This record gives sequence, C-alpha cells and structure tokens, in this order.
Amino acid sequence: MRVLGIDPGLTRCGVGVVEGSVGRPLRLIDVNVVRTTSTLPVWERLVTIEKALDAWIEEHRPDAVSIERIFARSDVSTIMGTAQASGLAMVVAARRGIPVALHTPSEVKAAVSGNGRADKAQVTAMVTRILRLDAPPKPADAADALALAITHIWRGGAHERITEAQNKYAAAVAAAGRGTR
Amino acid sequence: MRVLGIDPGLTRCGVGVVEGSVGRPLRLIDVNVVRTTSTLPVWERLVTIEKALDAWIEEHRPDAVSIERIFARSDVSTIMGTAQASGLAMVVAARRGIPVALHTPSEVKAAVSGNGRADKAQVTAMVTRILRLDAPPKPADAADALALAITHIWRGGAHERITEAQNKYAAAVAAAGRGTR
Repeated sequence: MRVLGIDPGLTRCGVGVVEGSVGRPLRLIDVNVVRTTSTLPVWERLVTIEKALDAWIEEHRPDAVSIERIFARSDVSTIMGTAQASGLAMVVAARRGIPVALHTPSEVKAAVSGNGRADKAQVTAMVTRILRLDAPPKPADAADALALAITHIWRGGAHERITEAQNKYAAAVAAAGRGTR
Repeated sequence: MRVLGIDPGLTRCGVGVVEGSVGRPLRLIDVNVVRTTSTLPVWERLVTIEKALDAWIEEHRPDAVSIERIFARSDVSTIMGTAQASGLAMVVAARRGIPVALHTPSEVKAAVSGNGRADKAQVTAMVTRILRLDAPPKPADAADALALAITHIWRGGAHERITEAQNKYAAAVAAAGRGTR
C-alpha cells in the first residue's frame, strides 16, 4: 500500500509518500514541502498548491491520501489558509477517486510514538526510526506528512478491514433475510 | 461586465450572475444555491461544489468572480466548511485566469444598501430593487450571492480604474526618471 501524507498549510504544505503494510517494514518513497509566498494573493497560492499536489499524485499514484484533520479552534492566525489548503488536498484526491482519510494530530502522534502528546522532536525521531533512515527527513517540517502516511497504513489498514468485514456481515445478513422470505 | 458572485458554504453555496456597469442598470442573469448533503464525507461535498462552480463559469463566462471574505472569528460550527468552500471557489476561478475579488459582508451591505450593518431583509429588498425584479430572488438565501456580484461591479470597477491609474502614473514616473538620466 502506498500512501501520500499531506500536512496542509498555505505557506508550507508538507507532502510525504510511504509504502508498506501493517507488520512489515515501511519504506520512504519521497518527501518535500510545497512553499508559497505570502505576498501573493491567496487564490494564486492555492492554485500553486493544487498543481503541486496534482503532480505528486500523478507521479506517485498513491492508493490513499492521509490528511491532517484541522479543528476550528486551531491557531486563528493561520486557520483560514490551513483549512483552505486541507480542503483543496481532499478535492485533488477525491476527484480522482483516491480514498481520503483524515487523522487528528493526536492520532498521528499516538500511532508513531505511542503517545498522543508527543512533541515534534519525538515524532521526527520515530519517523526516522520507522522508515529506517540514516538521518531525520528533510525538510525538517516534512516529518509530519510522513507520520500521517505511516498512521494511515497502520490505522487505515485496520479501519478498512473492519469496514470490509462489516460490509460482508451486512451482506450475509441481507442474503439470509432474503433466503427465509 | 459580467460578474459571478459566490456566497461560500458547504451545505448551501449561493451563486448569482449579474451583468452591467457603474452608472447603468444592472441585469440578473442567473441565480441559485448549490446544496450538498451533510451525511456525505467533506471531500465528496467539496467535489460536488467544485463541479457546480465549474459548470457555472463554463456556462456564464464571467469577467470576474466576487467571493465573500471569510474571517477566522466567524461562526465556529461552520467556519471550516465555509473556509474550504471559499478556497475552492477562488481556485476554480483563478486556475482559469478569471480575476478574483473578496468583499467583506459589511462592504457588501454598504454597497447595496448604504448601511454596513443592514440586515438580511434589507439586503434582499435592495437586491430586488437594484436588479428591478418583480419579486425577491429565489432561493431566498441566494440574494447574498447577487449582492456580492453587484458590489463587485460597483466597487470593483472603481478599484480597477484606480489601480490602472496608479500603474500609468508609476510608468510615467519611471519613464520620466529614465529620461533625466
């Protein structure tokens, strides 16, 4: 399974691709930060982000996109741009039919470090270890995008299997219901 | 000048097209509300809004798109969806090279009614009068989109003329500077 993690932001939008599956070593495919200049109008910055994310999906063909879930009570100075970048990230994936998943920062921290309140340095250290890298990923603020991708492979996989099992169960119940009529 | 006004929202996104110019009667071209179901995932709702706005631009070929400026301190329960819908509206226009303008609710109220604190009924009444309609526009919550389009024709035109004049002045100053060297 190949997952594109996106840490949305208007000034810096982290992107990271990780490949692997639950119980097997994960592999870093690519990582970077998409930057836009704050002097440009918001819509030009958003178009730049859209093009960059489209190019990443085009190149890496992820099976799923994992995006940080944003809350209305986050940092007010950046919340609008972050919300807009996250919405755009969802659209870029969804209009291609690629499954989208949102994970909260504490879910991500818990998944990679076992501690939902881990700090940035701990998350980076764990991402480095999980992906068996010689050095922390660069740019430094791209580690969160990789953590989002890792979280989705580890949690998302489980989610999908549960959903699949539920669907099969529901289908079996429906079939049994039809059989007894 | 033909302007598409967009009152962004995830559940209801108002769209209205108005044609005309400063000092001449304005004409209603089309108005509606794009609705999405709250039970669907956010990304599917955003893709629906993107497709609808794309279709409106394709059909009406506006010279500019006028979108309500959203503030981080707006209603917390809807701010995320509203921010995402507004970002998407900007992108849909900007990636086609159509000029985007943001107008605050008080700018819109002041432009159509002369009062920045006008209530919804007053705005609807003024939009109905300005566009010389026999009855208030329907759906009722689409009046804001028309007010955004009207505001842009009345204010945006002036803005553009000022910007043009400033550019000409700057060019003249630069030319004069080169001449004396």
